Amino acid sequence: MPKSTFEALEQELGEIHDIESALDLLHWDMQCIMPVAASDQRARQIETMSKLVHSRKTSDRLGELIAGSADFADAAGYGSYEAGLVRLARRHYEQDRRVPLDLQGRIAQAQAEGFGIWRDARAASDFSAFLPSLEKQIALAREYIACFDLTDSPYDVLLDRYEEGATVVEVDRVFDRLKPRLIELTKTVSANRHKVDNAMLHGHFPKAAQMALSQDVVARLGATEVAWRVVETVHPFEQNFGTNDIRLATRYDENFFSTSYYGTIHEFGHGLYEAQVDPVLNRTPLARGVSMTVHESQSRLMENLVGRGRAFISFAWPQLRAAFPDAFDAYDAEAFYRAVNKMQPSFIRVEADELTYGLHIILRYELERDLFEGRLQAADLPEVWNARMKEYLGVEVPNDALGVLQDVHWSEGMFGYFPDYLLGTVLSVQLWERMLADIPDLNEQIGNGEFAALRGWLGEHVHHSGSIYTPIETIERAAGGPLDPEPYLRYLEGKIADLYGIGS
Amino acid sequence: MPKSTFEALEQELGEIHDIESALDLLHWDMQCIMPVAASDQRARQIETMSKLVHSRKTSDRLGELIAGSADFADAAGYGSYEAGLVRLARRHYEQDRRVPLDLQGRIAQAQAEGFGIWRDARAASDFSAFLPSLEKQIALAREYIACFDLTDSPYDVLLDRYEEGATVVEVDRVFDRLKPRLIELTKTVSANRHKVDNAMLHGHFPKAAQMALSQDVVARLGATEVAWRVVETVHPFEQNFGTNDIRLATRYDENFFSTSYYGTIHEFGHGLYEAQVDPVLNRTPLARGVSMTVHESQSRLMENLVGRGRAFISFAWPQLRAAFPDAFDAYDAEAFYRAVNKMQPSFIRVEADELTYGLHIILRYELERDLFEGRLQAADLPEVWNARMKEYLGVEVPNDALGVLQDVHWSEGMFGYFPDYLLGTVLSVQLWERMLADIPDLNEQIGNGEFAALRGWLGEHVHHSGSIYTPIETIERAAGGPLDPEPYLRYLEGKIADLYGIGS
Repeated sequence: MPKSTFEALEQELGEIHDIESALDLLHWDMQCIMPVAASDQRARQIETMSKLVHSRKTSDRLGELIAGSADFADAAGYGSYEAGLVRLARRHYEQDRRVPLDLQGRIAQAQAEGFGIWRDARAASDFSAFLPSLEKQIALAREYIACFDLTDSPYDVLLDRYEEGATVVEVDRVFDRLKPRLIELTKTVSANRHKVDNAMLHGHFPKAAQMALSQDVVARLGATEVAWRVVETVHPFEQNFGTNDIRLATRYDENFFSTSYYGTIHEFGHGLYEAQVDPVLNRTPLARGVSMTVHESQSRLMENLVGRGRAFISFAWPQLRAAFPDAFDAYDAEAFYRAVNKMQPSFIRVEADELTYGLHIILRYELERDLFEGRLQAADLPEVWNARMKEYLGVEVPNDALGVLQDVHWSEGMFGYFPDYLLGTVLSVQLWERMLADIPDLNEQIGNGEFAALRGWLGEHVHHSGSIYTPIETIERAAGGPLDPEPYLRYLEGKIADLYGIGS
Repeated sequence: MPKSTFEALEQELGEIHDIESALDLLHWDMQCIMPVAASDQRARQIETMSKLVHSRKTSDRLGELIAGSADFADAAGYGSYEAGLVRLARRHYEQDRRVPLDLQGRIAQAQAEGFGIWRDARAASDFSAFLPSLEKQIALAREYIACFDLTDSPYDVLLDRYEEGATVVEVDRVFDRLKPRLIELTKTVSANRHKVDNAMLHGHFPKAAQMALSQDVVARLGATEVAWRVVETVHPFEQNFGTNDIRLATRYDENFFSTSYYGTIHEFGHGLYEAQVDPVLNRTPLARGVSMTVHESQSRLMENLVGRGRAFISFAWPQLRAAFPDAFDAYDAEAFYRAVNKMQPSFIRVEADELTYGLHIILRYELERDLFEGRLQAADLPEVWNARMKEYLGVEVPNDALGVLQDVHWSEGMFGYFPDYLLGTVLSVQLWERMLADIPDLNEQIGNGEFAALRGWLGEHVHHSGSIYTPIETIERAAGGPLDPEPYLRYLEGKIADLYGIGS
């Protein structure tokens, strides 16, 4: 009887997964293929399908199947597919049931409206035009928080949405260690900015050659024709439908080299995670990267620790030079290595380097945390933003478009998401150090364009288990312990010494 | 009360439409984008979504809403949106309810299996390997027929699936007139085949140039960037999602010019039909071309009467020559006109010209009709096929791959579909004659690359009404009467006289 209840649960979750895949495809297609005139009808399709998914995900029957499978799953034991499936199904079910449909509808509507208001406000660089919409988003997020049990910080509920188990206490532990050191290092590179030149990345890079290069680099890294696709889009992202259908969407800028090349390698890191989940988990909620932080560790590892490393660049340089002879003929691999690793303070997060990126994130995290802990009002955001940009990065923000209005996240109510970008970066270096210890000739292999051992290590230690373990468990298993900022700091200090010829 | 029942019906049909659009997208994406490794999981998604759609389309509630809307729809009057919606909803509901879910499941499974069996049998040119699967399809089609009221011919039920109201009596009326005349004309062109040369179409046509040309020609004909897409596929087709999202899938053959160019223009004809349906019909089953015959009339009109006409070719030739200088520089527009209009008997339907194509269709129609009227056994198909190919087209079929096994349709149980290809061709010439009478300088406009009046006429007389009227009514309204083979025969005779310099 418990076994057949579990099978009925699998069946129900499988069908929900099928329907959600169709809904995901409506979104993917909207961003990558659909002509713009179809926007309104696509919105209706998404609305109807979302309601359908929601009713299946919150049905009494699903709740009964989950409850009825508990003993069977416990018997299968820690780390088993059965235990993981019931654990995750219960988490999703409770999340979905706690938030009333009415509130979900208002959140969805505020998201849809918020995006347009934000886009216009940013174009006009006018925070006051965005403020009412932002305040509405904050109020809705507070309503959302109130649906859950009390936590130490109300912001914990928002963190937990993207990273199960994440808390202010834990994020503070990591960020408090990073912040003063990142500020110091930023001052060092600022004072030595003349020592590294990245002019070679700002030239003319024909789109057709960039597209061919994107296809080529992911194929060399391990993307296969039978399971991967690279398409063009406005906002780069990775989307997958099970382990056998991995889609990277990338953006091309003819005047700047790094956008598509490093953007594609970044998305490849996300894609490889999904592609290497154990395929027996397909058609279940376990066939997914476990959390935002772990996901970001994979994309950052691929983009920065692999892609911006000397070994990879020595391998890739002949291809890059062949692709863009006009732009690159006057340079060598070492010049390219230095250019793509240049660090310097700037206004825009998504254009920031490995060092200053962290401070952009810490700033956003602090503001969100203080908003939801009641120490900061939305109306004061521009003033506090600009003051901290001066304090952390030493730059004077000239206007709100280059400051507090730059990111889309708040317009869509995505509070709690930012910290994972930096936590993922922290994790990426922990994993890199372990991998180097396990594979002593890793850099030599990468220099030869051999990525099988790299993929194998990540598969075994991070990817295979999908969402069977919690994020915290997954990180412990992969990194041998909790998040630790020291490897990341060591790595930055080493790179700065190398590039700028100075200690810190 | 009747009004609010009708509104509830609209609401229910709208949601069903949304869900069906998501299902359609799963299919479209599978054919155009999805990597092949995802086939199994996509099959599960399609299965789940199909069940979902079926349960909504056959619910008691939907039946009650349709019944409860009847008076309100009648009051709105003939030709009204309300009357059309209730009529079509009732037709679909009755079709879906009459066929038991068990039978639908067996049909779907036989389709899925049949395709692979047919593909392998065709590759081996071995009809006997296909025969058991074909006999199963025929038996299932008989079970399907038995779900419906008795008709004069059992085959009428199959015809009606694709063309509401089509009957053997009516198809015979048209085909009996065409057949002897087409056979005669085919003999004429066979005897004069040396007079027209199409060697220029068999050269090297680089794919990139063909892709650019496909995009260009549909843009010139009227496809807009905001609502249309052209993508690559293996089997060309048109798919739309409402009037604002029209997608043409086309195939490129680097050794033969016509495949992509005329294939794309053909699919554009289908797309224009869907794009010009009155947008107020969107999100209802009325926002569709009314039938296979009318749809095919639009694609054939665009491909043959426009695209293979002297006026269009005089306009297009400079672009064609610029796109393929190596292949076309030695020729002129008149040589191109003659080449793309060459008529000659051949084995394969999809490669046939405007004249012999009709005989391929009549052959298939006769075989299907005789199978379901009990005058022919499946096992005898190759013998009868080959004998009639000799009789109608004067060719000796060398093997089953080039004969009875060439088409996919029977492997998927699509009996009743073939006649519409020829009926659509017949209709296309009726419409063309009327359009020329209404727009005396139509050819001059086309020669100047002006297609607005053409689109406008088709929109007004064929497209706008979508599926508000039945197919028979739609044809009567557009053509001024029922299907009439005489314009098509006159057109063929004129073209043959022109190309071969002979009367007939």
